[in-house]
Amino acid sequence: MNIEPIFYAPTELEIEQRLNRVQARMAEQGLDYYVAFCPDNIFYLTNFANAVHERPFILVIPSKGIAKFVVPQLEIPHVKTRMVGDIELVSYFEFPAPKGQAWNDRFQELFSVNKRIGVESICPLQIYDEIPGECIRSDIIDDIRMIKSDYEIGRLAYSCDLATKAHNWFLKSAYPGMPLIEMVNSVTGFVFKQLLQDNKEINPLSTRISAVFQPPSVSHDPHNFTNINMVIEKGGPHISIINAVMNGYGAEVERTFFIGEIPENAKKPFEIMLEGRRIAFEIAKPGILMSEVDQKVNDYFKKMGMGDKLLHRTGHGMGVTGHEAPFFAEGYDRPIEKGMCFTIEPGLYIEGIGGFRHSDTILIGEEGPIMLTDGPISIEELTLPI
Amino acid sequence: MNIEPIFYAPTELEIEQRLNRVQARMAEQGLDYYVAFCPDNIFYLTNFANAVHERPFILVIPSKGIAKFVVPQLEIPHVKTRMVGDIELVSYFEFPAPKGQAWNDRFQELFSVNKRIGVESICPLQIYDEIPGECIRSDIIDDIRMIKSDYEIGRLAYSCDLATKAHNWFLKSAYPGMPLIEMVNSVTGFVFKQLLQDNKEINPLSTRISAVFQPPSVSHDPHNFTNINMVIEKGGPHISIINAVMNGYGAEVERTFFIGEIPENAKKPFEIMLEGRRIAFEIAKPGILMSEVDQKVNDYFKKMGMGDKLLHRTGHGMGVTGHEAPFFAEGYDRPIEKGMCFTIEPGLYIEGIGGFRHSDTILIGEEGPIMLTDGPISIEELTLPI
Repeated sequence: MNIEPIFYAPTELEIEQRLNRVQARMAEQGLDYYVAFCPDNIFYLTNFANAVHERPFILVIPSKGIAKFVVPQLEIPHVKTRMVGDIELVSYFEFPAPKGQAWNDRFQELFSVNKRIGVESICPLQIYDEIPGECIRSDIIDDIRMIKSDYEIGRLAYSCDLATKAHNWFLKSAYPGMPLIEMVNSVTGFVFKQLLQDNKEINPLSTRISAVFQPPSVSHDPHNFTNINMVIEKGGPHISIINAVMNGYGAEVERTFFIGEIPENAKKPFEIMLEGRRIAFEIAKPGILMSEVDQKVNDYFKKMGMGDKLLHRTGHGMGVTGHEAPFFAEGYDRPIEKGMCFTIEPGLYIEGIGGFRHSDTILIGEEGPIMLTDGPISIEELTLPI
Repeated sequence: MNIEPIFYAPTELEIEQRLNRVQARMAEQGLDYYVAFCPDNIFYLTNFANAVHERPFILVIPSKGIAKFVVPQLEIPHVKTRMVGDIELVSYFEFPAPKGQAWNDRFQELFSVNKRIGVESICPLQIYDEIPGECIRSDIIDDIRMIKSDYEIGRLAYSCDLATKAHNWFLKSAYPGMPLIEMVNSVTGFVFKQLLQDNKEINPLSTRISAVFQPPSVSHDPHNFTNINMVIEKGGPHISIINAVMNGYGAEVERTFFIGEIPENAKKPFEIMLEGRRIAFEIAKPGILMSEVDQKVNDYFKKMGMGDKLLHRTGHGMGVTGHEAPFFAEGYDRPIEKGMCFTIEPGLYIEGIGGFRHSDTILIGEEGPIMLTDGPISIEELTLPI
C-alpha cells in the first residue's frame, strides 16, 4: 500500500468541496433543500459527530449558499469545538419545549414556501412530518460518500494501517485459553494508545473499536458473540475480527486461523474460501456491476457444493460508518467506480467444522482492488504455533 | 431503598404481559397491526437487543396472537439465544437482495389488505414506505414503557444499586491530577466485573457504561468532553457522571464535588441548585403535570437571579434506553403516574465558576419520589480530602 496515511481533521476546503458535490446533485434533481438527520452524513459535511438521542440535530442544505445546522443550545460549545467549515448554527433551548420554542419551530423557519425538499431514507417520521414542502426521498449524501476524496483515502489508509498492525499483533499474542475479554481489552488498548499518540484530540464520539474472535465451536455462526466467556481453542478454524471507526474513518480486517493444528476436514473449505476471495479480487474493477462480484463468487461456491454454506454477501462499503453502502450483493446492480472503498469477505459456514472468512478493506483503483489492510493469507501462515 | 434488586432475564409471562398491554392499547386506537423498528422497543417485547445497521430487524404485532419478527437469516441463532416468549421468526437472506427475496418481500406478506397500522415516531422512511395499509403514527410501546412493572422496578433497582456503588467508589478514589481516562477505565472495569460476577450471560449489546467527570474549568459547559486529557483539579465544582445501561436497564447518578477546598463564589450557586432539587423532589407526585415540576424549579432559579444560567430541563425518563421519555420539561403537559422512573437533575451553569448539578434516578411511588440511586448530597460531604 503506497497511499500516504492522513490523520488530521478535514480542511475547510475539503468540507466545502463535499457540500458543492451535494448541491450539484441537488440541482440535477431539482431540489431546493436537502434535510440530513443521519449522524454520519452530518459528520461528513460538518466534522461534528453527534450521538442520536431525543434532542434532534438536523442539517438543512439549501440549493445555494451555506448549510444551516439545527442543534440544542446546550451543545453549541461542543459543536463549535469540532465543526469545520462555514455553517450557520440555529439553536433551540430544549426538547420537549413549549409551543413556539421547540426544535420544529426553528427548523420550519429555514424553508421558504412551496419548495421541493430532499430527504434521506433513514429520516424518522417525527422529522419528516415537520418538513414543510414536497418531500422527495433521495440519498444524495450517501451516494456522494461512496466515492472517496484523496483526503478520505488518506484517512482510510491510516485506519487500515492501524487495524492491520493491531491484527498482526493479536495473531502474535493469541494462545489456547486466551479469553475473549483479554483480546477485546488488549486490542482496544493497542489501538487507542496509538490513536492518542498520533492525535491527542481524537473524538470519542466518532471512534468505535470492535475487536473479537470466534473459536471453532461457534465460528460457523458468524454473528454469535453471546458467550463472552469464550476462549481460543486448539486447532480451528477460528475467525478474528477487527472492525473499527477511528476518529471518523473505518477499517476492517479479519482472518481464519488455526492454533497448532489444522483439522483435516477444514483444509478443503479453507481453500474454496480462498479461491472465492481471489475471484472477487479479480472481478472487482471499475465498470463491473457489484451484484456480478457476489454472483460470480456464489456461483463458484455452489459449483464446489457449498451452496447451502453461504450466510452473507461478498462485501460492504467502508468509510465514515464502517459498514455502509454500496454492497457486493446479488440484486444490487450498481457499477463499481474508481475511488470506492469496500470490504471483500466471502465466507463459508459449516456446522461441525466452523467458519471460513478473510476480510480486507480495499480501494478501487483503475485496475481493480488496492489492499488497504493486509495480513497473512495462506493456511500455513495462519496456523499459529501453540 | 427497600426494593429487591433483580438481575435475571424476563420470564415468558413478563413478556406476554407487555404484549398484552400493547395489544390492549392497539384495540383502543383501532389498530390492526403495529410495526416496531426502535431497537429498545423490540428489546422490551422480545429480550433481543440488536445493533441497528443496514439489515433491518422489525417486529410486527397483530391485534391478536403472537408477534412476528423479521430478521436477517444470519442472525437467527443469535436471536434464538436471547429471545424470550412466543414469537414467530420470519427471515430474509441478505440486504440488498434480488427482487422477491428481500426483507420487504417477507415483511409485506405479514399484513392482510386494507388495514390500519400503527407506526413509531422514529420509524425511518425506508421502512414506512414499505408498510401496506393506512399508517397511523402512535408511540404505543414508548407509552407502555413509561410505567414500570414490578420486574422492571427490580431490574432498575439492581442497575441503580451498582451505579451508586461505582459512584461512591469513584468519589473515594478521586485525587487532583486523576486523568479522565483513568476514571473511565476504572469505573467501567468496576461495573463490568460486578455484572459478570452476578450474571455470566450479560448481553454486551444491551450494556453501555458512560463514566466521566468534568473539572471546574469546563463544568459550566455540561456536554463538553472534547478534551479527553482533562484531569481532576483542586477545588471545584467538578461534576461526576455515571449513566449506564446494564444488561438492559439504565441508571444515572451525578454529583457536584470539590477537592480540598470550596471557592467562595461556588457556595451560593451550590445551595440554590440543592434547593431547586429539593423543590423537584417535593412536587413530583402522581397527578402533577411533568411540566409543572420543571416550571417550579425554573421559577425558583429565576427568582434567585439564575434565569440565564439554565441549560436543560429538570429530568428525563429512565428504563431500557437510559435516557428516554417522559420528561420533566416545560411544555410537556403529561401527568406523573405511579411506577414511572425519572432522573431529577436541575442544573446551573456559570462561566468562570462552573456547573452545579446532582442527578439521581427515582421511582414515583404513591407519595412521590423513591430514590433508586444514592450518594452524598451536602457541600460538606462532597468536599473530598486531597
